[in-house]
Amino acid sequence: MPKGVAENVPDDGLTTRQRRTQPVTAVHTGPGKGKSTAAFGMALRAWNQGWPIGVFQFVKSAKWKVGEENALRVLGESGQGGPVAWHKMGSGWSWVQRDIESSEEAAREGWEQVKRDLAAETYRFYVLDEFTYPLHWGWIDVAEVVEVLRERPGSQHVVVTGRYAPEPLLELADLVTEMTKVKHPMDAGRKGQRGIEW
Amino acid sequence: MPKGVAENVPDDGLTTRQRRTQPVTAVHTGPGKGKSTAAFGMALRAWNQGWPIGVFQFVKSAKWKVGEENALRVLGESGQGGPVAWHKMGSGWSWVQRDIESSEEAAREGWEQVKRDLAAETYRFYVLDEFTYPLHWGWIDVAEVVEVLRERPGSQHVVVTGRYAPEPLLELADLVTEMTKVKHPMDAGRKGQRGIEW
Repeated sequence: MPKGVAENVPDDGLTTRQRRTQPVTAVHTGPGKGKSTAAFGMALRAWNQGWPIGVFQFVKSAKWKVGEENALRVLGESGQGGPVAWHKMGSGWSWVQRDIESSEEAAREGWEQVKRDLAAETYRFYVLDEFTYPLHWGWIDVAEVVEVLRERPGSQHVVVTGRYAPEPLLELADLVTEMTKVKHPMDAGRKGQRGIEW
Repeated sequence: MPKGVAENVPDDGLTTRQRRTQPVTAVHTGPGKGKSTAAFGMALRAWNQGWPIGVFQFVKSAKWKVGEENALRVLGESGQGGPVAWHKMGSGWSWVQRDIESSEEAAREGWEQVKRDLAAETYRFYVLDEFTYPLHWGWIDVAEVVEVLRERPGSQHVVVTGRYAPEPLLELADLVTEMTKVKHPMDAGRKGQRGIEW
């Protein structure tokens, strides 16, 4: 595949080099498979660039995506590429010492940490996995998220995954991919398969 | 996300355990981003299961996907998870000793090796990256591909990526995801970005 020729050159006064280091906000949404999987695939490229990677898993159960988590841990500890930090809401977030009362509170604690890390430029590549759900459910203010992402300092790339991505987030995003479910083995009565689903 | 409850249980005489080890044929197609990226994300799960992984990159230039390739090499050599073999058409395929005249011939050589490996059950998880293009261009016979994939022995999972997936391949596949391009930075005149596009 060619590296791609820009369809039109924007009149933004930036050089190509400047445009190349602009922070990217990507959203993987839609009902199909591959939203998170593609985000973790992107993380492989970020790792290869030596960029610090922060994964924030906004899901209740921490047992999911163990394959991706183990792989990124091994990569992060390999001494090559960038370091990887993997944060799980399902385990109560490592930085929260007290008991968390609800999923809503847990999601908010996650977002507060993302805000702190963006302000501190802790990572260069963020996966906010399943982050659309707390937005969709009204647990986290969409306008604030858009504002924080728009105003984030430096060149920090952020990938948000999940269904029902709110419109203001899609408007902010530079790259939006919708995964459409065409056919899925569960339709044919298959249950999730080891190595394929997790 | 829940592990999923099968929408209907098929009358195929198989146990859930048998169904869980059935080989999966997946196709990632459509004009959007993330087709290959999601395939390499799936490979992280396969790696975590300890499965041997074979990647066949059916593209002319071998310089692409260097991030994913480096990451999977490091994982494959980590002593944890499964081993990884990465085959590149762009470098003339490692097993072909003579000069290859054309991309068409190169694509056919790739498919011949995939057939040999499927017959020998060399890998447990295959990524046939951009394999739809030689099919779409008529370089490789679609009916033969469908036949070989349908009749492959054991529990070998195969993921095919690329646009223009031929209909018979979609019919054969257990899992088809279409990546739809909603918004892409190149539309806004940005060129490909390091760490994001490669």
